[in-house]
Amino acid sequence: MKSQEAATLRPSSLAKRHAILAAAEQAFLAARYDSVTMDEIADMAQVSKQTVYTHFGTKDQLFVELVTAMTKGAGDEVSAGSAVPASREHVREALEELLGHQLAVVMTPRLLRLRRLVISEVPRFPDLARAVYDQGPRRAVAALEALLGELDARGWVQVPNPAVAAEQLNWLVMGAPTNAAMYLGDDVAPSPAEQELHVRRAVGAFLAAYDGAL
Amino acid sequence: MKSQEAATLRPSSLAKRHAILAAAEQAFLAARYDSVTMDEIADMAQVSKQTVYTHFGTKDQLFVELVTAMTKGAGDEVSAGSAVPASREHVREALEELLGHQLAVVMTPRLLRLRRLVISEVPRFPDLARAVYDQGPRRAVAALEALLGELDARGWVQVPNPAVAAEQLNWLVMGAPTNAAMYLGDDVAPSPAEQELHVRRAVGAFLAAYDGAL
Repeated sequence: MKSQEAATLRPSSLAKRHAILAAAEQAFLAARYDSVTMDEIADMAQVSKQTVYTHFGTKDQLFVELVTAMTKGAGDEVSAGSAVPASREHVREALEELLGHQLAVVMTPRLLRLRRLVISEVPRFPDLARAVYDQGPRRAVAALEALLGELDARGWVQVPNPAVAAEQLNWLVMGAPTNAAMYLGDDVAPSPAEQELHVRRAVGAFLAAYDGAL
Repeated sequence: MKSQEAATLRPSSLAKRHAILAAAEQAFLAARYDSVTMDEIADMAQVSKQTVYTHFGTKDQLFVELVTAMTKGAGDEVSAGSAVPASREHVREALEELLGHQLAVVMTPRLLRLRRLVISEVPRFPDLARAVYDQGPRRAVAALEALLGELDARGWVQVPNPAVAAEQLNWLVMGAPTNAAMYLGDDVAPSPAEQELHVRRAVGAFLAAYDGAL
């Protein structure tokens, strides 16, 4: 059953579908892909194994649907609030808020576990990993590029190449914390205060590079 | 047998040790940890399984020694050539050379595969992953911090907090290419010309932020 068909399901069937996805998230994020079984997911979701197969076809398909749904959800959260600030004086604050929000979403333990899982499964699911890349980091950088282009058009920053500048700003903020989490584990995210300081420094360096006057 | 004892081995024994490590590299980087067997490594190295166990104890230990050796080798390569430039006029060129060299090493397909493998095995080998983090990214950033501190002391850049600036410069350069490789596969590294342009832009933004005059 394809996900676009979910909207047409009866309520009881939709509830089962949600229960299966929740169980799949718990199972896959707690273990490696290989060690998860459909039996286990059915037990956790309190449905029959047949119901799991009816809804999702195969373990592969369930995994792809789960990862796609989680990535979409995270992407929607990241995209919320990339509005153009009211005036030039609010550029720094707006960038700090936007990047701070994005970093907080990205550093959610369940999304860090998803990131590790997708990265480790690239050899088996290359298309899925590419979709996560497009809907995750690429989508965030594209939104930032649009915002920086708009700020440049208004003369509020000097960003002749918004695509390059957006990538730089993104990685000034995301690089160190995400890399540390990949090696050190998903539960050692910096505190909110540390994240705020990190973002302030990153945006400060970015604005110093692209508009010393701000 | 601990690696520090390798120096005292007879030449024939040392050759076997090297053959086993080379076979282990090939086997582990081509597959996931679970699917590699000591039999397979012995076959590839053309030694007996007993010889593999005599040299490395267990599969776990062999894996740890292999990852440690590869990380040490990469770290030594990255560290080569972080010399202070002769004059202020050479700062940009020196940073471009240093970071370009580091990026080229990091983007080696075998090291990208190692990165993915270590990241995916964090739940099983947390101490090893921490050691790779310390000897990999942390070591590179520390070397950059020392260099930027020296450049600041000479008045050639304005870097009041070399630790923060070093991390920023590192991720301006490493963030986008390593993240793309983790999702898109290890054989799609940017071309040397693309890497050079990327580094030039990153160093350009960094110097614009930390010394507009350069």
